[in-house]
Amino acid sequence: MSNNQVNSESLERLESEVRTYSRSFPTVFTRARGAKLYDENDREYIDFLAGAGTLNYGHNNPKLKKVLVDYLTDDGITHGLDMWTSAKREFLETLEEVIFKPRGLDYKVQFCGPTGTNAIEAALRIARNVTGRTNIVSFTNAFHGVTLGALATTANSKFRHAAAVPTQGVSFMPYCGYMEGDSSSLEFLEKTLTDSSSGVDYPAAILLETVQGEGGINVASTKWLQGIEAICKKHDILLIVDDIQSGCGRTGAYFSFEEAGLKPDIVTTSKSLSGYGLPFAAVFMRRDLDQWKPGEYNGTFRGNNLAFVTSTAAMREYWTNDSLAKDVQRKGKIVEHRFKQMARMCHEAGIEGAEERGRGLMRGLDVVDGDMADHIVAGCFEQGLVIETCGHSGQVVKCLCSLLITDDELNQGLDIVEKVLKQELAKKA
Amino acid sequence: MSNNQVNSESLERLESEVRTYSRSFPTVFTRARGAKLYDENDREYIDFLAGAGTLNYGHNNPKLKKVLVDYLTDDGITHGLDMWTSAKREFLETLEEVIFKPRGLDYKVQFCGPTGTNAIEAALRIARNVTGRTNIVSFTNAFHGVTLGALATTANSKFRHAAAVPTQGVSFMPYCGYMEGDSSSLEFLEKTLTDSSSGVDYPAAILLETVQGEGGINVASTKWLQGIEAICKKHDILLIVDDIQSGCGRTGAYFSFEEAGLKPDIVTTSKSLSGYGLPFAAVFMRRDLDQWKPGEYNGTFRGNNLAFVTSTAAMREYWTNDSLAKDVQRKGKIVEHRFKQMARMCHEAGIEGAEERGRGLMRGLDVVDGDMADHIVAGCFEQGLVIETCGHSGQVVKCLCSLLITDDELNQGLDIVEKVLKQELAKKA
Amino acid sequence: MSNNQVNSESLERLESEVRTYSRSFPTVFTRARGAKLYDENDREYIDFLAGAGTLNYGHNNPKLKKVLVDYLTDDGITHGLDMWTSAKREFLETLEEVIFKPRGLDYKVQFCGPTGTNAIEAALRIARNVTGRTNIVSFTNAFHGVTLGALATTANSKFRHAAAVPTQGVSFMPYCGYMEGDSSSLEFLEKTLTDSSSGVDYPAAILLETVQGEGGINVASTKWLQGIEAICKKHDILLIVDDIQSGCGRTGAYFSFEEAGLKPDIVTTSKSLSGYGLPFAAVFMRRDLDQWKPGEYNGTFRGNNLAFVTSTAAMREYWTNDSLAKDVQRKGKIVEHRFKQMARMCHEAGIEGAEERGRGLMRGLDVVDGDMADHIVAGCFEQGLVIETCGHSGQVVKCLCSLLITDDELNQGLDIVEKVLKQELAKKA
Amino acid sequence: MSNNQVNSESLERLESEVRTYSRSFPTVFTRARGAKLYDENDREYIDFLAGAGTLNYGHNNPKLKKVLVDYLTDDGITHGLDMWTSAKREFLETLEEVIFKPRGLDYKVQFCGPTGTNAIEAALRIARNVTGRTNIVSFTNAFHGVTLGALATTANSKFRHAAAVPTQGVSFMPYCGYMEGDSSSLEFLEKTLTDSSSGVDYPAAILLETVQGEGGINVASTKWLQGIEAICKKHDILLIVDDIQSGCGRTGAYFSFEEAGLKPDIVTTSKSLSGYGLPFAAVFMRRDLDQWKPGEYNGTFRGNNLAFVTSTAAMREYWTNDSLAKDVQRKGKIVEHRFKQMARMCHEAGIEGAEERGRGLMRGLDVVDGDMADHIVAGCFEQGLVIETCGHSGQVVKCLCSLLITDDELNQGLDIVEKVLKQELAKKA
Repeated sequence: MSNNQVNSESLERLESEVRTYSRSFPTVFTRARGAKLYDENDREYIDFLAGAGTLNYGHNNPKLKKVLVDYLTDDGITHGLDMWTSAKREFLETLEEVIFKPRGLDYKVQFCGPTGTNAIEAALRIARNVTGRTNIVSFTNAFHGVTLGALATTANSKFRHAAAVPTQGVSFMPYCGYMEGDSSSLEFLEKTLTDSSSGVDYPAAILLETVQGEGGINVASTKWLQGIEAICKKHDILLIVDDIQSGCGRTGAYFSFEEAGLKPDIVTTSKSLSGYGLPFAAVFMRRDLDQWKPGEYNGTFRGNNLAFVTSTAAMREYWTNDSLAKDVQRKGKIVEHRFKQMARMCHEAGIEGAEERGRGLMRGLDVVDGDMADHIVAGCFEQGLVIETCGHSGQVVKCLCSLLITDDELNQGLDIVEKVLKQELAKKA
Repeated sequence: MSNNQVNSESLERLESEVRTYSRSFPTVFTRARGAKLYDENDREYIDFLAGAGTLNYGHNNPKLKKVLVDYLTDDGITHGLDMWTSAKREFLETLEEVIFKPRGLDYKVQFCGPTGTNAIEAALRIARNVTGRTNIVSFTNAFHGVTLGALATTANSKFRHAAAVPTQGVSFMPYCGYMEGDSSSLEFLEKTLTDSSSGVDYPAAILLETVQGEGGINVASTKWLQGIEAICKKHDILLIVDDIQSGCGRTGAYFSFEEAGLKPDIVTTSKSLSGYGLPFAAVFMRRDLDQWKPGEYNGTFRGNNLAFVTSTAAMREYWTNDSLAKDVQRKGKIVEHRFKQMARMCHEAGIEGAEERGRGLMRGLDVVDGDMADHIVAGCFEQGLVIETCGHSGQVVKCLCSLLITDDELNQGLDIVEKVLKQELAKKA
Repeated sequence: MSNNQVNSESLERLESEVRTYSRSFPTVFTRARGAKLYDENDREYIDFLAGAGTLNYGHNNPKLKKVLVDYLTDDGITHGLDMWTSAKREFLETLEEVIFKPRGLDYKVQFCGPTGTNAIEAALRIARNVTGRTNIVSFTNAFHGVTLGALATTANSKFRHAAAVPTQGVSFMPYCGYMEGDSSSLEFLEKTLTDSSSGVDYPAAILLETVQGEGGINVASTKWLQGIEAICKKHDILLIVDDIQSGCGRTGAYFSFEEAGLKPDIVTTSKSLSGYGLPFAAVFMRRDLDQWKPGEYNGTFRGNNLAFVTSTAAMREYWTNDSLAKDVQRKGKIVEHRFKQMARMCHEAGIEGAEERGRGLMRGLDVVDGDMADHIVAGCFEQGLVIETCGHSGQVVKCLCSLLITDDELNQGLDIVEKVLKQELAKKA
Repeated sequence: MSNNQVNSESLERLESEVRTYSRSFPTVFTRARGAKLYDENDREYIDFLAGAGTLNYGHNNPKLKKVLVDYLTDDGITHGLDMWTSAKREFLETLEEVIFKPRGLDYKVQFCGPTGTNAIEAALRIARNVTGRTNIVSFTNAFHGVTLGALATTANSKFRHAAAVPTQGVSFMPYCGYMEGDSSSLEFLEKTLTDSSSGVDYPAAILLETVQGEGGINVASTKWLQGIEAICKKHDILLIVDDIQSGCGRTGAYFSFEEAGLKPDIVTTSKSLSGYGLPFAAVFMRRDLDQWKPGEYNGTFRGNNLAFVTSTAAMREYWTNDSLAKDVQRKGKIVEHRFKQMARMCHEAGIEGAEERGRGLMRGLDVVDGDMADHIVAGCFEQGLVIETCGHSGQVVKCLCSLLITDDELNQGLDIVEKVLKQELAKKA
């Protein structure tokens, strides 16, 4: 198709083979707005990927763009290491007022290097230094980043193997639903942690995602989450919630752990925190856990001032009332309904294990087979939908669309998934 | 002083104790331009810190700002994971044309998470996977970041201790000048690496800074650098140059290793790479070393598109000819001259070990005593100069000012340093 | 009591506080024969500890003593590093003829440093080098020694904590019976090992005891053991059986894994291997796994020649027919019967979880409470019985008496245990 | 030669390829006495290897044999875990009286598993637990054993590589003489340890051999040893002397560190400690360092009672006066003289780097070339001398003969070495 020529020669020649998304979406994008991406042939794509959960408020959200452009234009501080700036102060005060206080949270905030993995590394050190213990409990299918300290908590062997050195200081336990029986993984966890002969060293912290994003949209039940928190409290173990992908309204409430009523000791956040796709990450920690000495953990880009500005605007725009949270729940139901229908289509076609999973707008359709999921992704892309997979074998088609997507866009995207799924199921038959 | 009130209550209450620069510079900054910072009392500061080497082209460089604001205004892709974008293509093509080709380099480019430490982690994995060896040689006083894999190569015990777990897979060797005698550290290194009973496992790579920034503006001699490269070639060890702080023209040439004529196997870059203080990092590697499998190393903010745009503009503006490089050398001589004078003042005041060190505009005045250096920093701040220290005991006052600083600004800043130094020396007498 | 004075001043003054058994048995022993120990007050003790499984043929077994004294008298090689000696040749040939061939085993034999932990370290290296994988699966309550490599596979936190450095390269999985449900731990194990996102790196080997000795006389079922072997075969994972405590007839058959029909890839053996309590250890490995290069693993006392001599004699004396194996089973039934009665006494006294466990003459009475078990040990010692505890909280009173103990001695010992148990239960009531 | 047939088929078939000494000495030994070995063809060999330093009092020393056979005959305790025995008490009291007190040492004694590597593992844990620090300083060419904790301190890559996992927690520094200049390695060591930015974490202990045995008979000077002790004292670092090969009179005095007047905080001992080649090892530690909790470090064969008996006899026989120590010095001079002559022969034949090294009867002739050293070993064996090599490339022919060797035997052995050396040098010419 003449209008679909991809001018990628230099990209392929110069960029490392480690690249991934350009393999799924072989075109050159130029513009984006809200829930839509455009390539240089002016093809339009609905975006169900949204920066893997980074663009909760859409691409180039105009309200955030305005404050960003104004700040740049006025020569606001762009880069200031961790000096005090008015942008930082406004961010912190807004965070306290809009997010922490209404939720009864009294956290201190650490700005680490502006990526999720840096936040995880910082959180692990806090837990280890404060408790004087080394071990961290992580879970099957967990993903927390790839720098070496965070990698040790990441379950996927693809990333682990690439490190070329063994990781240490982490024990993996079965996540909610990994073992049969509702409470078996909690019982196993508590027995293992409290048994001095289990081989699992008494941990500094339990690190978890309330919904595992990269791991396959695995949803921990409220009961399980509360069980984990209870174990932590009972045995003086810190609870770290990694809300990097599931936070900032992705599951409805601002934090993904609000629904279960948790109060984690430490929270890691990044991705949609800036609201605009700008690199940004932070660790929120219980006030008494802030035992850092000055400069023990640093990073050139910690405290990205442009991100302070857009993040502050996003909190003010979207989190001073519960309308967005409610709307996420409403749209989540739409996706849930459609994905459940599609799971049934799979069942009818003989894919017994197919299922819908998710919370809010963090939704997955598990089609059991990674190859089939890849075909769906490829088919959707041809139809104008950017959507990706996750899970241990890439078997889950996931919807992480902008929270502000219109119902029309959402339904169009879902229609495409359904259409492509039907084609794939037909091929199988 | 009434116009110096600092409204920092919320900042102190909410930000983690890990903060550092706000302790040295206790004011709230609001604006910046070129080589100058302004606080909310409208006080002006000359900036000799420049984002610890991140703002080589100054704060809010107007030429880069224009392309950035235009790109934002036009809804260019802000966040796109590692999808292909026109901004990425333009960046890569410009990098090849303006930087690689004229220097005879044939690198592939990996976009990792947008911080230096992520680039180091990626570089170490490349070296380990390609060679099948685990050990990495790093050097005394080296700083390469604080995530666990990079931390293992960082010499400073403050950072190492904070990890709360031992690091592994790295052997530290004496940097140029650490041992007495010109060639002793090279001889020791080669003997140790080639002696199968030295205890130092045969390494995958040698990782070095040509000028150690955080470590104290320690300058490796051309002869030493060439010696290291020769050892690498002779013994089939990869040479990784960490040009994160010393690159992008800081020492004059674009890469800090050009002066010695090195062709590293792998180069890590970040800090001033975006040109505008935006988070950005990349690994350049010899084409045959790009043995990554898709997605083995990832990160949400890899390939920051806003940084592509400003970085491309910076390369075009400043690196299509050698005028900036020459100007850096010229200004570097000014700093060198003044710092040498100040070192002599120190000698006269009985501080025998004081000395000037540096290359280009990466300059340090070693006053031997960390407390004295702190007093100079504090005195300079009162006089309107933002300047910081480095070195094993913070004993080196360093000048990392914008490469575009005017001669007037530069001399004003140096005058302040000299004035404060004299006061401190007078106190000592 | 005048005849019970303990002359231990110099012992307490000069020996490290790490000592343990002299705390349970505060007397100075001078002589021993068969199943009996004598102290310097000429008090006689029945020995249910027997060197923690090292004295399967009793103390100073006269038949083995004769060959040992003759060998010494004739100036046979006592210490010869790993040179060839006639004693070694006779040992190897006897091992092949008496032990390997009748069992259909075709192993090569590695003599490592003469302790169990050295054998485990060797076995782990074989598995890692042959497979090119790092991870080892060990189990809850496992004990395989305390040198750092073996310690990583030992579950008990007392030992692990004392290392003062974190261990690595080992994943702990639930042993048979650790989780509820008969097959749940097998299912969990297989799922975890085959799931590339479980966080458990694909292992080189599974290391197990068929009966966990130090861990509490936990008996793996035949079905579970066969299940483990099947998983190993299916997934190309090596099976290492640590038969150090449970081998040499302790459970009846020569190897503890014979009953389940296993053919491990690697077997570690020590303790009763010499037959006389002499330090000795070996690794038996499938012929094709012997990929060692000369001298890659060494040790001054590997191949203890005195142990070759007694071990050879023991094999000839006790293992050329099945009479000892049968007698162990017969005596094991006696202990089982009596311990079951005692468990019922416990139940009647309100200790619900009490139970008898074991195979052959490796038997435990779990009284649930470590303090109570300690009281039983102390009471037995006063009555002339040396017996010890094991298990995660020392809650299991164990019988590891000589396999050659007479029925009278065995019953006397059991009578003492019962008498003391009753006293303890009476105190509780 | 018909009387030289080697009946080794079963040995080769059944023993692991890891075997080493049977490759250098391809015969089957049957008897030994004093400084002589005999094979099954009744060939006699002078033994300059002596169990790699384990048989300081010769093979089957008749005085020690008598007490050993008597003890066995009387049914003394052979194996008693770490229970108190009269043999242990007598050993400890003799050790205190004969060894510790005359040397002004006030040590406590830990009996670990009966091999040197177990003693090293224990010593490292003591140092790490008492200081709360992890790092250990070891040296180029050091050998301290191969279990994983000890291996981390062993410099030779052959052993390190075989572990198949990276080791950690150890920094290697240049041993005396490794760097040019007399004091350079001490200066480098002190600078590195006290520089918080050297990358070498502040250590718990420095672990050293006063003469490196396996590493090539490298002799540390008195000045260097005293310098190390001074650094340890000044900087509150523990000094561990590994006297496993160099102790028990090997260098003349009982401990190898006496000549330099050191008082190590911890001493590891094994090899000749039993006096009879029986597996035995112990850690001697400053009284206040004995902070072990009961049972934190264990091992089935710790406290080998047969070794207590022979060791006690050896101390009484050889160490109540200084005649043995003096005789070792006298014989050492003989070897030194002859090896120096041979080194000169090498020089004359063009091998410039050849040299004699050693202290007491721990002597080496460095012929520079490992292949040549192997030829010498093979030639000597044919002539009836058992002698081995050491050093990073096996380039050092070493003499570790029994301290009780007669002058005749010693000279005969040296004559053989010289004869074979001349033949080899002639071949070269």
